[in-house]
Amino acid sequence: MYAIGIDVGGTNLKAGLVNEKGEILSVSRTPLHFTTAEDLAKVLADLALQVMGDLSPDAIDHVGIGIPGAVQGGNILFTANIPMKDVPLKALFQKHLNLPVTLANDADCAAAGEYLFGAGKGTQDFIIVTLGTGVGGGLILGGRLHTGKCCAGEVGHMVIDLGGQPCGCGRAGCWESYASATGLIRMGEEAAAAHRDSLLNQISREMGGLNGKSIFSAADQGDPAALAVTAQFAKYLAVGVTNLVNILQPDVLAIGGGIAGAPDHLLLTPLQNYVHEYCYGRHVGHYPKVVKAQMGNDAGIVGAALIHTLL
Amino acid sequence: MYAIGIDVGGTNLKAGLVNEKGEILSVSRTPLHFTTAEDLAKVLADLALQVMGDLSPDAIDHVGIGIPGAVQGGNILFTANIPMKDVPLKALFQKHLNLPVTLANDADCAAAGEYLFGAGKGTQDFIIVTLGTGVGGGLILGGRLHTGKCCAGEVGHMVIDLGGQPCGCGRAGCWESYASATGLIRMGEEAAAAHRDSLLNQISREMGGLNGKSIFSAADQGDPAALAVTAQFAKYLAVGVTNLVNILQPDVLAIGGGIAGAPDHLLLTPLQNYVHEYCYGRHVGHYPKVVKAQMGNDAGIVGAALIHTLL
Repeated sequence: MYAIGIDVGGTNLKAGLVNEKGEILSVSRTPLHFTTAEDLAKVLADLALQVMGDLSPDAIDHVGIGIPGAVQGGNILFTANIPMKDVPLKALFQKHLNLPVTLANDADCAAAGEYLFGAGKGTQDFIIVTLGTGVGGGLILGGRLHTGKCCAGEVGHMVIDLGGQPCGCGRAGCWESYASATGLIRMGEEAAAAHRDSLLNQISREMGGLNGKSIFSAADQGDPAALAVTAQFAKYLAVGVTNLVNILQPDVLAIGGGIAGAPDHLLLTPLQNYVHEYCYGRHVGHYPKVVKAQMGNDAGIVGAALIHTLL
Repeated sequence: MYAIGIDVGGTNLKAGLVNEKGEILSVSRTPLHFTTAEDLAKVLADLALQVMGDLSPDAIDHVGIGIPGAVQGGNILFTANIPMKDVPLKALFQKHLNLPVTLANDADCAAAGEYLFGAGKGTQDFIIVTLGTGVGGGLILGGRLHTGKCCAGEVGHMVIDLGGQPCGCGRAGCWESYASATGLIRMGEEAAAAHRDSLLNQISREMGGLNGKSIFSAADQGDPAALAVTAQFAKYLAVGVTNLVNILQPDVLAIGGGIAGAPDHLLLTPLQNYVHEYCYGRHVGHYPKVVKAQMGNDAGIVGAALIHTLL
């Protein structure tokens, strides 16, 4: 049997045909532009038909659709970046292609993919923390996706620095204001401005600004200003990761997103060291594995296709 | 059928005979003084026999023992207040009374009791936060006790104020340094010292110090210094509660422990207002219920007796 996973991104839609081993056998994508929810459902169904190729619908076990927002049952409750609210997307999709459909949050899909075939394989309790514009999270607890009453896993909106950086959520000091790419770039630009002779400053001037990659690159070349920024960033990341570890005691916690690709000695290793030194479980010799996510963007497609097995 | 719950406290041992409705039918207690783990097991078995009265062991379904520390399988890994480490308590107990035995963390037992018969009854996802010397937590997720790899629920060791109050766990700014009775008393004594004409100062002088109850009592009488302290305390509590809500989205979150008995207008109501105003789920109209625990000390006994049903 096969399943289809569809990733609804802010700018692109991408579908994949997935087998039971988590392999993506074919992919189809299209830019996101639609006027109505009905249009979106039609485009998604067309994408699904494309990846099916010559397969009959009988060969498809399930369709999973990952949404960058909150879902419940077959409905989109809310998305941050696409103008949709209270949309019965499952029912609209099934008008075009009558297969079992699961809607899920996209971070949950990535968590499911990594849990089934990547960094979380073989564990009971797995957390993925995704470092992007914000800090997202997905929780697999006791082998099941934990969604709570709705939209659990908003780990980025955990205050770690009371009265600190203002956050779009209305509070101040949220983890994602520090441990996201956005937070890293803010700290990088501040350091570049404060250290005019730094490589960081030079890169910022030449490239018209910094990004996560250029900051880690400057640090990797030994620039003291950049090294101070990445060390601080790793500590911010580690504080929130250790909070999650103390609360949930997972077997494995994985970090994903572009920034997770930074050189290990600048991010993963200091993160692991901090968790090892400060996690509460050290009193009884229990340490979670802290690793990088393994599947990159594939996790979203594979996880969407198979997330119904974790509900 | 009946079950026996035993609560191993820092100063007392207390056993209860519990029926399927969560009613405690008989209780027996004794001060904690023992020299060896074997002695402790014998005392616990004697307590269990006492509450059984004329019942035969065949009428007892299960014995649960709540331990103030970390357990795994039938072993105590570590306790903070009793000198025990790597003790096979289940096996030692069964030498005296050969019944099915479950060891569990005492906060998990309280969570189980409240989940089955108190504030969490009828829910899927339930969190209890216990405000005492520290801040403890118990998590029931998807209807099962969540222990993680070991000793999950150390919610008090979540940093909310980076670089803030030093904590015994080795970090600084842990939630329990602010939202515990210890944190409240520290803030109260600081305010009493700073406001010599306050009622808080008067009480501190007359009683030789403050406690949680006297601080809330002074606030309830309108003392401005005390009111400022309890308002700040409620905010600290609310910050961590909202973090937990954003991460786990429970149906119900209950606060327990002596301080939870403070007048509602000074603690529960401002806590509920903060969560309502700032929780991430408000974007989709999802608010958890934030309530007081209902069962008091009984939760530990009842939960210990029946925690095996949630594993």
